[in-house]
Formats: sequence, C-alpha cells, structure tokens
Amino acid sequence: MPEGGGAVRAHHHATVSSVMHGVLVSDRLGELLEELRPFEESLDYDSNEACLIRHLCRVREKEMRVPAQLRQALAFGASESYPVWVEARRTSNFDLLRPYLERGVELRRRYAGCFDVADPYDALLDDFEPGLKTAEVEAVFDRLKGELPQLVAEASAALVDDSLLDGSFAVEPQQQLQAALLGRFGFREGTWRIDVALHPFAASLATSDIRLTTHYPPNRFSVFAAMHEAGHAIYEHNIDPALERTPLCVGASAGIHESQSRLFENIVGRSLAWWRWAYPQVQRLFTEQFGAVPLEDFHRAINNVQPSLIRITADETTYSLHIILRFELERELLAGTLAVADLPAAWNERMRDYLGVEVPDDADGVLQDPHWCGEFGTFPAYALGNVISVQLWDRAFADLPDLEARLEEGDLAPLTGWLRDHLWRLGRKFTAGETLERAVGSGLDPEPYLRYLRGKVAALSP
Amino acid sequence: MPEGGGAVRAHHHATVSSVMHGVLVSDRLGELLEELRPFEESLDYDSNEACLIRHLCRVREKEMRVPAQLRQALAFGASESYPVWVEARRTSNFDLLRPYLERGVELRRRYAGCFDVADPYDALLDDFEPGLKTAEVEAVFDRLKGELPQLVAEASAALVDDSLLDGSFAVEPQQQLQAALLGRFGFREGTWRIDVALHPFAASLATSDIRLTTHYPPNRFSVFAAMHEAGHAIYEHNIDPALERTPLCVGASAGIHESQSRLFENIVGRSLAWWRWAYPQVQRLFTEQFGAVPLEDFHRAINNVQPSLIRITADETTYSLHIILRFELERELLAGTLAVADLPAAWNERMRDYLGVEVPDDADGVLQDPHWCGEFGTFPAYALGNVISVQLWDRAFADLPDLEARLEEGDLAPLTGWLRDHLWRLGRKFTAGETLERAVGSGLDPEPYLRYLRGKVAALSP
Repeated sequence: MPEGGGAVRAHHHATVSSVMHGVLVSDRLGELLEELRPFEESLDYDSNEACLIRHLCRVREKEMRVPAQLRQALAFGASESYPVWVEARRTSNFDLLRPYLERGVELRRRYAGCFDVADPYDALLDDFEPGLKTAEVEAVFDRLKGELPQLVAEASAALVDDSLLDGSFAVEPQQQLQAALLGRFGFREGTWRIDVALHPFAASLATSDIRLTTHYPPNRFSVFAAMHEAGHAIYEHNIDPALERTPLCVGASAGIHESQSRLFENIVGRSLAWWRWAYPQVQRLFTEQFGAVPLEDFHRAINNVQPSLIRITADETTYSLHIILRFELERELLAGTLAVADLPAAWNERMRDYLGVEVPDDADGVLQDPHWCGEFGTFPAYALGNVISVQLWDRAFADLPDLEARLEEGDLAPLTGWLRDHLWRLGRKFTAGETLERAVGSGLDPEPYLRYLRGKVAALSP
Repeated sequence: MPEGGGAVRAHHHATVSSVMHGVLVSDRLGELLEELRPFEESLDYDSNEACLIRHLCRVREKEMRVPAQLRQALAFGASESYPVWVEARRTSNFDLLRPYLERGVELRRRYAGCFDVADPYDALLDDFEPGLKTAEVEAVFDRLKGELPQLVAEASAALVDDSLLDGSFAVEPQQQLQAALLGRFGFREGTWRIDVALHPFAASLATSDIRLTTHYPPNRFSVFAAMHEAGHAIYEHNIDPALERTPLCVGASAGIHESQSRLFENIVGRSLAWWRWAYPQVQRLFTEQFGAVPLEDFHRAINNVQPSLIRITADETTYSLHIILRFELERELLAGTLAVADLPAAWNERMRDYLGVEVPDDADGVLQDPHWCGEFGTFPAYALGNVISVQLWDRAFADLPDLEARLEEGDLAPLTGWLRDHLWRLGRKFTAGETLERAVGSGLDPEPYLRYLRGKVAALSP
C-alpha cells in the first residue's frame, strides 16, 4: 500500500470490523447456532462441522460481551495512535505518545472487564492464543528467565566475527538465492507470488492464493526474513482445503503461527545441515564476499549471539528476553501497578537487568515497536513461537531419523510432510493447547528450546 | 492474484455483492433515504450531499427490482463460465462456451425484464453508463459506421512500415522510459505504486491509494498500455477528496473513464507534439533500435492504420468498428433475433463487412474477449471513450491555446489541470450525460472524433 492510503485503509478496516461484529452478534446467527447444537453434539468432536460450530459459538460468546462502542473505540484508538507513534519514534519523544497509551491501557482495562477471567491479561491473551492462560505463559517465561541471561552471557563471550556478513549485495543474485531456497518449500505452482515490502509479511487470501513479501538488504547478507515469511505462508497454504472460506482456515494461534516462521528461519535456516546444501550457492552467487569464507565461519556468523537494543534484529538466544520484558510491562500496566508515565524508566531498567544493555534513547527503547498502538497481548506469541518450534522439531526428528541427512540435500519434503500431517492441515479447528497436544503429545514445554539453545551455544563456542 | 486464487476470489466477490445487495434493499436504508428527501430538496442540486442522496435513491430503486436469486445467478454465471471461456478460446471450440452463453443471454433477458425500459438493452447499458439510452448510442455508432470504413480504407492504403517497432527490448530501459512518461502526470508522492501484470489495469482503493499496473513487452516497442492505465488512474486520483469513501468516489461512467485512458494513450500518446519531447529519451534508452530512426518515421509507425482481427491491439481508427460489431450482436442476441448458435457466423460476416478481415478461427474471432462471460452492455464504453476523448480534448484546446506547445515540452500540467477542474473532481456526482454536459457544454457528439481521425490520416499520408 502506498503510504498515502493509510487513513482510508483504517476506515476500511473499521467498516469490515463493524460488519463482522454485526454478523456475530446478530439474533439470526444466535438462532442458527442454537438450532445446530444437537447436530454438533451428534458429531465426532474432531469433525470439521463440530469444530466450526464450536468456534463460532466461542467467538460469538466473546463478541456479545463487548459493547459495540468499546469495539469501535479500540479500532479508532489503534488507527489514531499509529501516526503519533511514527512521529514519537522519529523524534524519540515519548511524551507525544503518552496520552494515547494511557487511553489505550484504559480501554483495555474496560475490555478485560467484559470477561470473567482470573487475570485481566487472560482476556487479551485469549484473542491471540485461544484458550491459553496467563499463568501458563508466566510459568514458561519464568523458566526461560531463569536460564537465558546466563546462556546469553556465555554465548556472547565467544566474540564471533560476524562482520563477514556486511558488504554490498546486489538485488539480482539475492533474488536467485531466495528463489532457490523458497523453491524447496513445495508451494504448489500457480498458487503464490512474491513481492517486495519494506517490512516483509505473508498473507493468504485462500490456501491457493498465497502472498509472500521479502526484502533484499543492500548492505548485509540475509535470507532470514524470506525464510521466516515462507514459514508463515507454507502453514496456511497447507490447511485442509475443506476448511476454505470458513473462519477455521487460518493458523491455530499467533504463537503457533510464529513457531512455523521461527522453525524455518532459525532451526532450519541457521542450521549447519541446511547450509551444507545452500552455502555453495551463496558462494557461487556472491563469490567476492564469500568465495574464501569457509562454511563453518559463515555458520558461526549467522548464529552470533549478542545482546542488543532492538527486538526485531535480535538473535534467537536473546530474543525471548525482549519478549518477556514486554509481557511483564504489559501486565503491570494493565494491573495499574505501573503508570504509563513510568514506562520508559521501567523499560530501561529491565533492559539493563535482563540483557545488560543501556538504552540511549526511547526511540531505540520503549518506542521501538508499534504494537502498543493497537495490540496488547500479542507479544508472548513471539517467544512462545520459539518454544513451540523446538517442541515440533524434536517431535518430527523423533519420527524422521533421516531429517538432518535430508536437510543436507536441501530436501525439506520430509519435514513439510510431517508438519502438514500433524499441524498445518488442522487450521484453527482446535484451541492453541489442543492443537499443540495433537502435534507433539504434550502442552507448552520450554525444556526442548533451552536444550536446543544450550547445544547450539556449546557447538558454536570456539 | 496467482491463477490458483480465482475460484475462491469468485466466492469473495459473490459474498461482497450479496452484502451490498442486502444493504441497498434494506428497509433501514429506505427509511433513511425517505427521511432525507426534504433535506435533499432543500439543497443545491450540485451539492455533494444532494448528489449522494440522489445516487443512492437511484441505485436502491434499481436494486429493489432485481430478485436476490437473479442477482446471485448472474454472479455465479460469470464465475462459472470464465474458466470455460479460457478453455474454449485455447481450443478454439465455441461449442464449449455455447450453453453458458445461452444461459447468460437468458438471464440478461430476465434482468432487462425487471425494468420499465423502451429497449431491453437500456437496462444493461444503464449499469455502465448511468442515464444513457441505447438510441443515443445507436445514433453515434450509425454516424461512425457511415464514415469509418472509408477512412480505414484510405489510411491503410498508405502502407506505413511499422516493423521498426519490432525488436528486442530490455526491461530496465522500458522501466526508465515509463517512469519518465508517468512522471509527467502529476501523481502525488506516496499515493501510488506501479507493478507488473499480464493484462495491465488500474485500480484505486482511495484517491490517495492508486495502483497502476503495466507490462514490458519484450519484442515490440510499446508504452501505450502504461499511458492508457495512467489515464484511468489519474482520473480517480483527482476526484474531490470530499467524496472519499462514498459511492461517488469513482469515475462517472465506463465510457467517460475510457475517454481518459484513450486521451492519454492516443490523443497525447500518439501525437507528434508529445514525442517531440519524449522521443529523444527513447533514442537514448534504445539507441540500437531507434538511434537512426527519424522522429517522423517513428510517429508514423505508432499511428499505422491496419484492419486486424483483434480488438485490444487495434489502432485508433479501426478500433470503434470492433465495438460497433459487438454492440449490434449483443442487441440482436438480447432481442432474440440472433441465436447464440449463429453467433460465430454473424461475427465473421460482420468482420468481413466492416473491416474487410477474414476470421480464420473462433479463438481469434468471437471467442477473443472474456466480457460475455459476465458483462453485457459494457462494450459501447470503449467506442464512446474514443468519441468523448476528442470532445474533451477540443474543449481543453479551445480554453488553452498553448496546449500543444506545452506538450512539446513534456508539460502535461495545463491539460491535467483543465481535466481536474472540468471533469475529474466531479467523480460520479452526476449521470454520464450531465457530467459530459458540464465538461464540454454538449451531449455525445461523434463529429470531433471523426474530424480528428480525418486530420490524422491526412497528416500521416505520405
């Protein structure tokens, strides 16, 4: 979208939201769902129809509790505050955004108040992770917080030279490389396209209409955004076509979606096995930059661990700490134990505690992300994605003993086949917890992720 | 859109149509419009509010007459027959499409039957040219038909060598040339983007969110699709922003829209004045192909008149005859004086009569256009666009005596300024006829177009 389209787009969004709200809370839908209740009870729990009826009942029940006026205030608050955030970040001036955040927190308190929940944050979290409770997230994050800072300290002491990733990278060979990598995902011909975007994203208009975006950074080697978005895209591409044009034809939750992008960006995309296959192509396309660089040095560079200010460029070991910090601040804001005015100081203090990083200004601190303009409760998904990605990988690895050997041949088919069968095809038929249970046989578990990071840090140490 | 997205997109379209239908025929909208009647009568006829109320009353009144079931049958007929047309054209097999066309004609007869109209074709035409009558179109087309064949015969006797436009054309210099040409239209920064499409089109999501598409033909010089689409795009870009997010924020009619694309593609885009400015850039970017070709030869080549089989590649002199043929066949099908089974023969006969062209097969004849899958009544717009484009040009020329001199400097600002003030800003506030009257002070008039073509043919003769 051209920049100038933003204001009208916000209105389009509000219109569609309001049409959806109207349908969801309509008496007619209520009557139909009431009529379908005995039918649902007669069906197998796993049948598409039963899942669809359950889902609609659940979504309608939630929507009925939210006054239309509050819905509208939340939508307008988001579109109103976004340009203010852009300006606040540009000028590193938190005070500009402060009143909007205060209003946003207040609206979210009222939103949480619409629901019978043990913790007000549960109401926000449930919009992104259907069925998941704040206490479950807290338990996972506490475990991570207990181990990650020490792991980061060890790993960052290794002093890896990643400057070999800097340089000048022409667009055309980057396109060729990305095409070769994405070509391994198994997107069906004629059902997807790739374009360039400033902030890459993936979107699916149908399982057979997948839109990927990427970028071609001119001064630093990176295919990781492309691998990340391909992970999101291949997930929705492989939802059971029988769910097409139903509200179940999306990923199960934000966290599970993120687990797919992380799995391909990090577990596959920063593995030695994958680059054994892919690195010769990098060397061929960028001979000047990498012709004389051994695979092992390249692999070490793309896995360098260094605490830093900015979430979106953080490595996979420090990343979750950026999220835990945001989760804690969100909860305190919502509970009223932290005032918006005190947010920058709290941010800076926690960055020092968790990552040992001094924040020089709010633009690179509390103002770095746009999320708080419109979304509270979505940050946990990013760290849960890390955790879940390794749970899935371990499970696939147990089922497919030759997984690594196939990766070394650039063959993703065993992995994508496993993910399709155990996760992707399900779409949003089940809650986040049910979906995970079906795929890996257990609930959220941070241990595989910690084991993975420990192993990686040990292997990369000189 | 990737090819694979078509089937689901058809359902999306049908859903949006049905939501729109529901809003238009709702009692609530009826009550609101009834309530607003005295307000409308108190307003100036030209005020935005009065125009909006009039427009909604008009559209609602039409929509109320069409049974929801017929609406749906028309929508599904279109999406159902499109892939059949693709296959029928590929195999040049009219019989494949025949039953779908028969059903389509029958549905359109029923549609026309919903309205009190003098001529059943009036009902179809009105959807594309609000307020225009078939008899008015017929009068214009009869006049064109009386003169064009003779003019085509004269012009095509000139035996212009346009093979100098063939060759090998790299994408990058084409991009540079198109960027230079489109840069003269005055699109506001940050409000538009350009992408590549197989069949170029222009779309506006808002006056500040304009999407242009183009192509870069590898084997023949052409900037005409880009100029054509830029004409469509700049029109909607300049609608009064006060009309944003109302149904008036679109072009006045299909024919008036087409007049803008034709004006920039042909009157400007094939004029000697424009190429006096632009041709040196062509010679610089494509030195090998055009370095030794004088401007006059290039100009003659891009204006070559030759009767041919295919509408979309027809020159501006023969073009309208392709349309008149379709208009006549559509009317006869609707009236029942021509059976669908006899359509290919009727097509071929008229191609011989009007253009002196023998049709070798249906793929290059009656099956060449997709329109009859979903649209009857839109073809006249293409020829009306030619007619109107010259009416507007003559009027602008009368008001702006230095128009040609400015074109020779690549300066489109006087022309675009005039069009904005006299046409573009109005959007769909008025009917097609009212809009034309306001812009040029008269109704449809084929004489300026015929004078323009005669002048051009005379000037290009050796």
